[in-house]
Amino acid sequence: MNIDDLAARIAKGERRALARAITLAESARDDHRAQTAALLDALKSGGRSALRIGLSGTPGVGKSTFIEAFGMFLIERGMKIAVLAVDPSSTRSGGSILADKTRMEQLARDHNAFIRPSPSQTQLGGVARRTREAVALCEAAGYDVVIIETVGVGQSETMVAGMADLFLLLIAPAGGDELQGVKRGIMEMADLILINKADGALKETAVRTCADYSGALHLLRKRPQDPEGFPKAMMVSAVTQNGLPEAWEAMETLADWRRETSYWSANRAEQARNWFEEDLRAALLARLEKDPKIRGMVTHLGDAVAAGAASPAAAADTVLAALDK
Amino acid sequence: MNIDDLAARIAKGERRALARAITLAESARDDHRAQTAALLDALKSGGRSALRIGLSGTPGVGKSTFIEAFGMFLIERGMKIAVLAVDPSSTRSGGSILADKTRMEQLARDHNAFIRPSPSQTQLGGVARRTREAVALCEAAGYDVVIIETVGVGQSETMVAGMADLFLLLIAPAGGDELQGVKRGIMEMADLILINKADGALKETAVRTCADYSGALHLLRKRPQDPEGFPKAMMVSAVTQNGLPEAWEAMETLADWRRETSYWSANRAEQARNWFEEDLRAALLARLEKDPKIRGMVTHLGDAVAAGAASPAAAADTVLAALDK
Repeated sequence: MNIDDLAARIAKGERRALARAITLAESARDDHRAQTAALLDALKSGGRSALRIGLSGTPGVGKSTFIEAFGMFLIERGMKIAVLAVDPSSTRSGGSILADKTRMEQLARDHNAFIRPSPSQTQLGGVARRTREAVALCEAAGYDVVIIETVGVGQSETMVAGMADLFLLLIAPAGGDELQGVKRGIMEMADLILINKADGALKETAVRTCADYSGALHLLRKRPQDPEGFPKAMMVSAVTQNGLPEAWEAMETLADWRRETSYWSANRAEQARNWFEEDLRAALLARLEKDPKIRGMVTHLGDAVAAGAASPAAAADTVLAALDK
Repeated sequence: MNIDDLAARIAKGERRALARAITLAESARDDHRAQTAALLDALKSGGRSALRIGLSGTPGVGKSTFIEAFGMFLIERGMKIAVLAVDPSSTRSGGSILADKTRMEQLARDHNAFIRPSPSQTQLGGVARRTREAVALCEAAGYDVVIIETVGVGQSETMVAGMADLFLLLIAPAGGDELQGVKRGIMEMADLILINKADGALKETAVRTCADYSGALHLLRKRPQDPEGFPKAMMVSAVTQNGLPEAWEAMETLADWRRETSYWSANRAEQARNWFEEDLRAALLARLEKDPKIRGMVTHLGDAVAAGAASPAAAADTVLAALDK
């Protein structure tokens, strides 16, 4: 594969080249890792910058219909949209492409949108690295907004927030004044909380839910990276498109504010430094997995330690010495 | 230092030798690490086994007074007791020895007790390794019960439960029927929940609190490692010593049951395997910290990545190549 040629085709916005590059980034093979690194380096000079939006929400809140409506709304305003799904719990493989594209039928057919489903499961560290690289590739391909979608479980929100400029939390209207068990940590990461399905029979419930979240957000400490009034809760409807212009305006206000203050660039610099350190640690630990001889040694010595025939420290030293050979 | 001599003195129960060995285990120096490993290997043949009890509770529940009363109770029954404190958030240093020993005045003066305060702060991984080694040293020194005490915050409970045979949660009596914000995960780790301060004006509240926790424990799934009736909530008073015999009887019942079933040995084998794998990963990652040249390189390349002058993957490769030289 000619990396310069692939880079040129991505920069021209060829979707097949972009898809191929993301597949390359998803590979764990050493040569593919090296090619991806070279590709990212080649593309960096383009200097394109997308708005990276993290989006979380538990299953059933209508993430797909929201992304479809919001994506089409942005496309109508002349933008190009990429959607990347992150699901560390996913064991989906080939079939998922169809499934993800069926979920967002209109968007999937639009030539200004690029939808990439979650690759099948690996460890969270691997998912983080591959998603970050996919974001960078979409950015280099000229997409104006990259939406990184994740399901609201476990640590995936923290990971997605760690690669986004803005973080949105999508919520379904719910009766009662409880906050639907949304973890405080996730609320604290959210820049905007969007109450979805604010239409039809659920409209009134959505109003109450929005008031509840507004109240809860007021209790959180104001963050230095926010202008007055943020973070905030707003209502949207993927069906009627109500609230989409207001939500986008809020995102633009927040993005502009952060670009004008130094937060935007400082945040991206900090994210890049974290990625480097994570990559480094992951690559070092991967040495324990890659060589079948080392892997076998770890299992074998683990048995010996479990049986009391070797001490953990001595066994660890044996493996480290073997790694250095 | 003569390791064989030190091992012999520890096996004879010399407290100064034990204290010196734990100091050795707390050191991060490579030669000290090697000496500790040799020492643990030399002591392993002794074949002594203590009951390792993990104990957690938030500040204010009376952990120190409970340990003092419980420790003296066991000593009166002919046992030798070691107490190790784990506090990953601690920044205490020299002065803490006095502070910890003052907390348990009677126990600290008894020659059948050995109290070791938490060493000053390092990363959690380092704390885990050093505490595990201190437990093994106390065991080899002939202590019958080793209490590993931790404060109820963060991940330290999981760590302590991962090196204990039994895990106790100490709770203060509290009005209302709320469960004092005890995290479900910590309750699920507990073998016994002890409601402390069940005396004087708090007695009635303790009865209610105990009933609340008993109810909550009934909702948890029965675990295969437990006999009928466990995990359970019980009342104790460090002041009147009420409940201490019953609590100790419950611990013995549980320990006997687990020894008779295969859980005890399987659990220790699994713990040992985990320690080995943790040690191995920690030792590998420590290579990024140890050499000042590598450390400087990580900082320098991190700056370059943050400034956009290098890609995370390429920077990581540079460090890995330098490590291999």
